[in-house]
Amino acid sequence: MLLSLKMSYKAAMGEEYKAGCPPGNPTAERNCDSDATKASEDFVDPWTVRTSSAKGIDYDKLIVQFGSSKIDKELINRIERATGQRPHRFLRRGIFFSHRDMNQILDAYENKKPFYLYTGRGPSSEAMHLGHLVPFIFTKWLQDVFNVPLVIQMSDDEKYLWKDLTLEQAYSYTVENAKDIIACGFDINKTFIFSDLEYMGQSPGFYRNVVKIQKHVTFNQVKGIFGFTDSDCIGKISFPAVQAAPSFSNSFPKIFRDRTDIQCLIPCAIDQDPYFRMTRDVAPRIGHPKPALLHSTFFPALQGAQTKMSASDPNSSIFLTDTAKQIKSKVNKHAFSGGRDTVEEHRQFGGNCEVDVSFMYLTFFLEDDDRLEQIRKDYTSGAMLTGELKKTLIDVLQPLIAEHQARRKAVTEETVKEFMTPRQLSFHFQCFCFDT
Amino acid sequence: MLLSLKMSYKAAMGEEYKAGCPPGNPTAERNCDSDATKASEDFVDPWTVRTSSAKGIDYDKLIVQFGSSKIDKELINRIERATGQRPHRFLRRGIFFSHRDMNQILDAYENKKPFYLYTGRGPSSEAMHLGHLVPFIFTKWLQDVFNVPLVIQMSDDEKYLWKDLTLEQAYSYTVENAKDIIACGFDINKTFIFSDLEYMGQSPGFYRNVVKIQKHVTFNQVKGIFGFTDSDCIGKISFPAVQAAPSFSNSFPKIFRDRTDIQCLIPCAIDQDPYFRMTRDVAPRIGHPKPALLHSTFFPALQGAQTKMSASDPNSSIFLTDTAKQIKSKVNKHAFSGGRDTVEEHRQFGGNCEVDVSFMYLTFFLEDDDRLEQIRKDYTSGAMLTGELKKTLIDVLQPLIAEHQARRKAVTEETVKEFMTPRQLSFHFQCFCFDT
Repeated sequence: MLLSLKMSYKAAMGEEYKAGCPPGNPTAERNCDSDATKASEDFVDPWTVRTSSAKGIDYDKLIVQFGSSKIDKELINRIERATGQRPHRFLRRGIFFSHRDMNQILDAYENKKPFYLYTGRGPSSEAMHLGHLVPFIFTKWLQDVFNVPLVIQMSDDEKYLWKDLTLEQAYSYTVENAKDIIACGFDINKTFIFSDLEYMGQSPGFYRNVVKIQKHVTFNQVKGIFGFTDSDCIGKISFPAVQAAPSFSNSFPKIFRDRTDIQCLIPCAIDQDPYFRMTRDVAPRIGHPKPALLHSTFFPALQGAQTKMSASDPNSSIFLTDTAKQIKSKVNKHAFSGGRDTVEEHRQFGGNCEVDVSFMYLTFFLEDDDRLEQIRKDYTSGAMLTGELKKTLIDVLQPLIAEHQARRKAVTEETVKEFMTPRQLSFHFQCFCFDT
Repeated sequence: MLLSLKMSYKAAMGEEYKAGCPPGNPTAERNCDSDATKASEDFVDPWTVRTSSAKGIDYDKLIVQFGSSKIDKELINRIERATGQRPHRFLRRGIFFSHRDMNQILDAYENKKPFYLYTGRGPSSEAMHLGHLVPFIFTKWLQDVFNVPLVIQMSDDEKYLWKDLTLEQAYSYTVENAKDIIACGFDINKTFIFSDLEYMGQSPGFYRNVVKIQKHVTFNQVKGIFGFTDSDCIGKISFPAVQAAPSFSNSFPKIFRDRTDIQCLIPCAIDQDPYFRMTRDVAPRIGHPKPALLHSTFFPALQGAQTKMSASDPNSSIFLTDTAKQIKSKVNKHAFSGGRDTVEEHRQFGGNCEVDVSFMYLTFFLEDDDRLEQIRKDYTSGAMLTGELKKTLIDVLQPLIAEHQARRKAVTEETVKEFMTPRQLSFHFQCFCFDT
C-alpha cells in the first residue's frame, strides 16, 4: 500500500517544480525529465487535467502539443531589461513556463505602444484556495512593472452553464471571489473586474464582439477544441466566444473607447489555452490583433501535483479562509513528504525535494532564492528533517494567509462595486492610446 | 409554356386566400381544399417555405404538423366579446389562422391579469415590403384593443450571423426598418423597439434569460428544430435563445421590473413558430409561463403565394418606398391574374379569385367586407374585368403606401431613439402588475 501511495504521489511531479531545473537550461531539464514515452496520454483542457504517467503532466510536451513557446532565460532577461525590475519568482522558477507572442508585447512596450492585461476566474464557489491566487499574484506584478490596464473576467455565466447553480448563486460567488482578488492588491485606478452576467448588459461593445466571434467559429471547431458533443447545451457551445471577447480592446469602450488595435496579454494557467487558441485563430479574421499569452503550470494539491486541486475537497489545499491552526494541521497531515521512513534513514540518505509538496509550495511562496536553495540542499542531504521543512512552510503560509484575510476584510462592498463599475482607467500609455 | 405558368401560379394559393372559405366553417374549407395528399412535402421553417403541391402550403396540415390550434369562429367571437371591438379583417378573413393558448390570454384579460405583446423583425435590408407590414398592422390592432405593452425585437444580430453584413450595416437596417414600423402607428407610451446588438448591452435581465434558455436547450434539440449542422457557426446555434428571451417578462426590467410571471402573446408569421415551440418547451423548466401565439399565413408574392416574398427581388412585391407609378406598373405587369385569356371568354366564364393575386392583396388591405364580397362575385361572374380588378387594388394601395410614406417621413431620428430607449411604459394593467 505504501508503494502504491508513493507511486501516486510521484505522479504529482511536473518538471517545473524541480529546483534543480531552472528554465533556460535545456540540458539540465532533459536530464531531469527524460522519459520519452511518459506523456503520451497526458490530457489537458479547461475541465480535465489528466496524466497516466507517474511523473505527472509533461509541460515540455504540452508546449509542443499546444504549439506555444517556452519561456526561456533569454525572454526572462528581456523582460528584466524592458521593465528594469527583477523577474518575479514565478518566472525565475519556471512556474510561468510557456508563452505566445510575449516578444510582440515587449516590442510594443519598448516602442511605447499600449497593451493591456486580461485574466479571469470561474467563480464556482465562495472558497478560493492558494492555487487560485497564482495567476492573480503574477498579474498584479505584471500590472505593477508595466503600468498597464487590467480587465478581470468573472465567468459566472460559464459556471451557471456547467454547474448545478442558479444565476443568483453564480453572481454571489463572483462578488465573494472578487474580494479575494482585490485583496491581492490590484490598483483600483488600473483594474476593471466584471461579471459576465452583469457586464454583458452594460456594454454593447462586449456583446458585439461575442457575436462577431460566434459568426467565425463553427460547431465543428469547438467540438475539436473543447470536445463538445451534440448533447451539450447551446450555452456551453457558444460560451467560448464569451471568454474570447475580452481579448479585444473594444469590448471595453469606457477604457479603450473604440480602439480595436490594442493588444492584449493574458496570464493564465495552461489549461485555459484552448480558449485562446480559438481566439487567436479568429482575431485576424475580424480585424483584431491576436492576444499574447503567458501560461502557468498547475498548482499541486497537498496530496500531489498529478491534477489541479479541487475546490470541493477541503483537504486538497490550503483555503484562503483557513485559520493558522488549520494551515498547520493540513500541512502536517496532508502535504505529501519526500522524506524517508525514519529519522535515521533520512539523515543517512536525505529527502526528495522533487516529490515533496511542502518544498513545492515553498517554490511558489518563499521569495528568498538563497534560502530556498539552502532548504533544497539541506533537505536533500538529510540535514533538514520533514518536520522542519513543514514548519518552514507553515511559517511562510500562516502570515501570508493571515495578511490576505486582513486585506480581504478591508475590502468593502463599496470597493467591490467600484472595481466592478465600467469606467475610465488611468495608465502609462494612455496618451499614446488616444492622442490626448 | 402557358400551361407551366398557370401551374406555377396555381401553386400560389393557400386556402386562407379563398374568399369562399371563412374560418369557422370547416365543411366549406374541406370542400375548397380537399386534396388529401398534396401537402405531404410542405416544408416550413424560419428560412425556407417550400411546397411541392400546386395548391401551395396546406395551412390546415401545418396546424396538425406544428401542433397548434385553428383560430375558429368561436375564438374570434370570444375576442370580440372580450375587447368589445369588431375583429380585425386579418381575423375575419383567416389571415391570422392559427394560435397557441390564446384562450389563456383571454382568460387573463377577462380576469384583469396583465399580459404583453412581443413581435419582431429581422432587418436584412433597408427595404420593407407590404408583406412585412402584416404582423405589425395586426399587432398595432391588438395593442389598441387590449391596451397592453408591446416589445418589438429587431434581430440585427441574427441578420449579421446569417447574411454577408457588417454589424454596422445590420444596425443601420434596424434603425431604417424601425421607422417603417413606427409609421404603422404604434403608441410610443406602450411600445419598446429594441436592437439585439444594442439592447443586450443595456439590460442584464435580457442576457440572463438568454443564458438560462441556452442552459436548457441542447445542440441535438436545435438540430432537430432548425436543421443546424456541425458546420454552422456557434452564433447561429445559440441564436434561438436570443429570439426566445423576449418571451419572458423579466427580460424588460424597465417595463416589468422583476416580474417573471407576465404572459406574453406573440403575433408572427407561422414560419417563426419553431423558435417559440422551443421557447414553450423551455419556459416551465425555468419558471416562466409559456408564451401564447397568433400565427399568420404568408403574404403572397406578386407572382403567386407558393413561397414568401423576397426582399431582394424588386418585382416580387410592392415595396414601402414604391411610387404611385411603380405600384400601378407592378400590379398591372406582375400581379398574376385569375382572368380569362380574352374579354369575351372572361365575360362568358368569369375569373378565378382563388388564384388572382390582386384579389388576394385586396383580402389583406381592403377593409370593407361587403365591397370585397361584391368584387369577388363580380369577378367570378365575369361582370368585372381583370383591368378593373387591378385598378381597384391600385386605388387601395396607392393611398395606403403614400400615407405610410408620409407617416414615415414624419418619424424623426429623435422619435426612433425614444422608441428604442429602455424605459417605463404606461398600460392598462400596470396597477395589477406592480400593486401600485
